[in-house]
Amino acid sequence: MDFSHYWAARQKKVDAALNRYLPPATTKPKTIHKAMRYSIFAGGKRLRPVICLATAEVLRGPVDEALPLACAVECIHTYSLIHDDLPCMDNDDFRRGKPTSHKVFGEGMAVLAGDALLTIAFEMAASCKSWPRYSHADIIREIAVAAGSQALIAGQVADAEGEGKKISPAELRYIHLNKTAALITTSIRLGAMSANATPAQMKNLTEFGQSLGLAFQVIDDILDVTQTTEKLGKSAGKDLKAQKATYPALLGLEKAKKEADKLTARALAALKPFGKNAEPLKAIADYLLSREN
Amino acid sequence: MDFSHYWAARQKKVDAALNRYLPPATTKPKTIHKAMRYSIFAGGKRLRPVICLATAEVLRGPVDEALPLACAVECIHTYSLIHDDLPCMDNDDFRRGKPTSHKVFGEGMAVLAGDALLTIAFEMAASCKSWPRYSHADIIREIAVAAGSQALIAGQVADAEGEGKKISPAELRYIHLNKTAALITTSIRLGAMSANATPAQMKNLTEFGQSLGLAFQVIDDILDVTQTTEKLGKSAGKDLKAQKATYPALLGLEKAKKEADKLTARALAALKPFGKNAEPLKAIADYLLSREN
Repeated sequence: MDFSHYWAARQKKVDAALNRYLPPATTKPKTIHKAMRYSIFAGGKRLRPVICLATAEVLRGPVDEALPLACAVECIHTYSLIHDDLPCMDNDDFRRGKPTSHKVFGEGMAVLAGDALLTIAFEMAASCKSWPRYSHADIIREIAVAAGSQALIAGQVADAEGEGKKISPAELRYIHLNKTAALITTSIRLGAMSANATPAQMKNLTEFGQSLGLAFQVIDDILDVTQTTEKLGKSAGKDLKAQKATYPALLGLEKAKKEADKLTARALAALKPFGKNAEPLKAIADYLLSREN
Repeated sequence: MDFSHYWAARQKKVDAALNRYLPPATTKPKTIHKAMRYSIFAGGKRLRPVICLATAEVLRGPVDEALPLACAVECIHTYSLIHDDLPCMDNDDFRRGKPTSHKVFGEGMAVLAGDALLTIAFEMAASCKSWPRYSHADIIREIAVAAGSQALIAGQVADAEGEGKKISPAELRYIHLNKTAALITTSIRLGAMSANATPAQMKNLTEFGQSLGLAFQVIDDILDVTQTTEKLGKSAGKDLKAQKATYPALLGLEKAKKEADKLTARALAALKPFGKNAEPLKAIADYLLSREN
């Protein structure tokens, strides 16, 4: 399997779909549609949508039917970054090497662009078909819960409230599970729904998602300490500066790396029942563990 | 029909449902759930949910089945107020006579509380049943479009961009149609969906909603000029101070009042086909025209 070719092809598919689903930048009022597109097409890796499509593929589902769900998740991820970068939140000027939304469009428009991306995510999700085991209501609930006040937003709240405080490893795990792992897990579950997954398949894929999501965040923490701003495309060392608890800060760099390896191994174990079919998801997990930005 | 008793009973029903649907304030992380509840239970009139239930009633639908939709719309309305009041938007310190969310919880938490209410609205909507003529996908799409970048958010963008500029009556109508009338119309359409409305009924009720929504906003503009801050529960005269275009500013107070009367008459005309059954919606329209805050 040529992984970089695989990834690039899926990215291209996702980009084309996002371009179709988002209103053109010429749609009135132009500013908001420009702002929505600016952040969506700012060069993100498309991890969540690609992993959604890969999951559908692993279960031999028709990949194109997972596309609206894959794009919905990417819109939610992007909205959360726009709001997270605001001066009243993390106050970040750069993201993916580009000025953040509020630096380009102003704070008010950045708030609204985030709101609009969150809203259109549900419109996209509602445009998918439904499946024997999963109704539209199940799909909308899956997304709303993952993006809601007891998952994604809970993680952001706990993260903000933990700044400058000494927090326990359990609390750090809570932040990472909610802020990062929840939406990654839901990306995988939505891909599984689009392939009409059995309950047993869903259980294994959910375990895979949670371990992979945690591993992803531990590695993010490690890269924040070990990489340059240039390589990351966002301000390096910012967690340390903001006195945020991270795995390297709590456990030391070596133990944090071991934790990432352990989580990745657990993720891969959850793929066993899928045998050779799981190849795309395995390749993604390997890539995430060895990435440098 | 004893209107104040009718309204109070529906308000109570909506409040009880919102209390059931929102996570308790003790749910982790507590701050976000406190902030969500603070704004939801800040003494709003519940116009949108009450009008949603009233529409279901007019069509002889089972009112309780419209409740998740009524509450979803109220959550979206409340989120838009929280974000609208932020310092980077309208910068308002008071709303419904109480300090705004960011004055109590800080700006970051107010952004997240708005996000969380927008998100949970879709979870609530997904918890309704579906009807022969209207699927969950139809309902989610209805809400997402009304709250999206070409309706509610478009109105906020145009409103913000129009500040301090001379705008035409057509542009003002665009702002009001999107910022206010769209969500009011959707409240009515959702009530109609929950009663499995025929296409002809839906058309008439949509016309009613658009005219009523515009009338409501024209009256809001008028009250901003003619009432005190105390009576309004929010800062009076703020449109004028922010150099926002309003109907009284563009047309003069008398003509603005006539416009409100004209729109209300148009709204009432759209109710004709429903005969005596339309009583609750008629009473709501009359109340909105004569209100003082």
